[in-house]
Amino acid sequence: MSVNVRIVLVNTTHPGNIGGVARAMKNMKFESLYLVAPKKFPHANADARAAGATDLLESAVVHDTLEEAIADCHLVVGTSARGRHIPWPVVDPRELASIVSPIDEEKKIAVVFGREDRGLTNEELHLCHYHVHIPSNESFSSLNLAAAVQVITYELRMSSLYSDQNEEHKPQWGTNWDIDMASSADLERLFDHMEQTLVDIDFLDPENPRQLMPRLRRLYLRSFPDKVEVSVLRGILTATQKQLKKS
Amino acid sequence: MSVNVRIVLVNTTHPGNIGGVARAMKNMKFESLYLVAPKKFPHANADARAAGATDLLESAVVHDTLEEAIADCHLVVGTSARGRHIPWPVVDPRELASIVSPIDEEKKIAVVFGREDRGLTNEELHLCHYHVHIPSNESFSSLNLAAAVQVITYELRMSSLYSDQNEEHKPQWGTNWDIDMASSADLERLFDHMEQTLVDIDFLDPENPRQLMPRLRRLYLRSFPDKVEVSVLRGILTATQKQLKKS
Repeated sequence: MSVNVRIVLVNTTHPGNIGGVARAMKNMKFESLYLVAPKKFPHANADARAAGATDLLESAVVHDTLEEAIADCHLVVGTSARGRHIPWPVVDPRELASIVSPIDEEKKIAVVFGREDRGLTNEELHLCHYHVHIPSNESFSSLNLAAAVQVITYELRMSSLYSDQNEEHKPQWGTNWDIDMASSADLERLFDHMEQTLVDIDFLDPENPRQLMPRLRRLYLRSFPDKVEVSVLRGILTATQKQLKKS
Repeated sequence: MSVNVRIVLVNTTHPGNIGGVARAMKNMKFESLYLVAPKKFPHANADARAAGATDLLESAVVHDTLEEAIADCHLVVGTSARGRHIPWPVVDPRELASIVSPIDEEKKIAVVFGREDRGLTNEELHLCHYHVHIPSNESFSSLNLAAAVQVITYELRMSSLYSDQNEEHKPQWGTNWDIDMASSADLERLFDHMEQTLVDIDFLDPENPRQLMPRLRRLYLRSFPDKVEVSVLRGILTATQKQLKKS
């Protein structure tokens, strides 16, 4: 892989699954495992299922929140079943691979997997640029966590193997100019500032926020803002707040 | 799947893996499981890992030899690590899918998976038309049995979905939900409104506009806003202007 992909597991219940994920990742030549508040880790069951990929378990990075685990990432993709109430850009694993594959290796990419029984929350999904859905049997759709990681990492590896043969025809990704992309942490600061300003101008009612912030997140995340664009937007928010203080 | 694919497991040691295979198959909408001389079957561990795919375990066909399990098949494919001493036609899972997908459903196809530790014997591999190799990490190449079945059945399902529903899987453009994209005229009204509001809050100096509007246009145009998103943005601009009039 020329790209820099981390696998993030949120709130995993069974440590055996963490081991199975480590094995699946290493089989596909991925190394970077992040764990958000795992129920039991480290654990003998994780080591057993890892079957020789225990090095990934030893180097796993553990965080308390998803926000921390993805703060330095430029592209965040969450796994999701279909049919969330606010539609979001959804890709299948092959489309995901075609998005990820041309990205240069200084950019950091997170693919986030939720809980065994309930997946990711809406709030967690709203941190993501894209959602990825494995097109499983509609009437038996829930894959084992390690199996889902296996499918995604397999697609990423296939795409990298196929595109290594095809370096010159790389499609562009993100912005094709020389300003750095905003990181997930930059964007979260922007969204916090935006939310506060919308409250200040009486557009957002904190008692009844409806889907305003998710809609705005979805809109801005789709364009992968660069750092200057984020400063411009924050400048507009600051200017707005300054006008309110005058009054 | 329009094609008729059975998964054949040869001499499986751990019954939990048979359950994991059943789950992986059912997730990808395959039903036909054949077992050649499993070490322990039926078994509680198989039921547990099947997680709701026990119907496949109940209908599994058990044979003593691989020859019997594939006797009525028209195409037999064996999973294999690289480097057997007699070269054989080897495909990757995607190439396998492209071979299998156009086959009509009266033809029977077997994909054969070997033992957890040693795979298929040379004699067993020589029963096969093709060998399929999952292009795993050369230095950590052995997938869990259920993970290998997951990858192969996933590829077969993707191929069938892409070819059955070519229309729906056309590359996406714009938003992939059911709200109409904003027209160019909608967007121009938005940008006019935005420019005026930025002048009102003293962020944009009409005497020295620099590259502010082009930057903002580029940012919003990249996300192909839908009509609701444009209304939300214009709502924010109107709310901002209303606050200014208060002062």
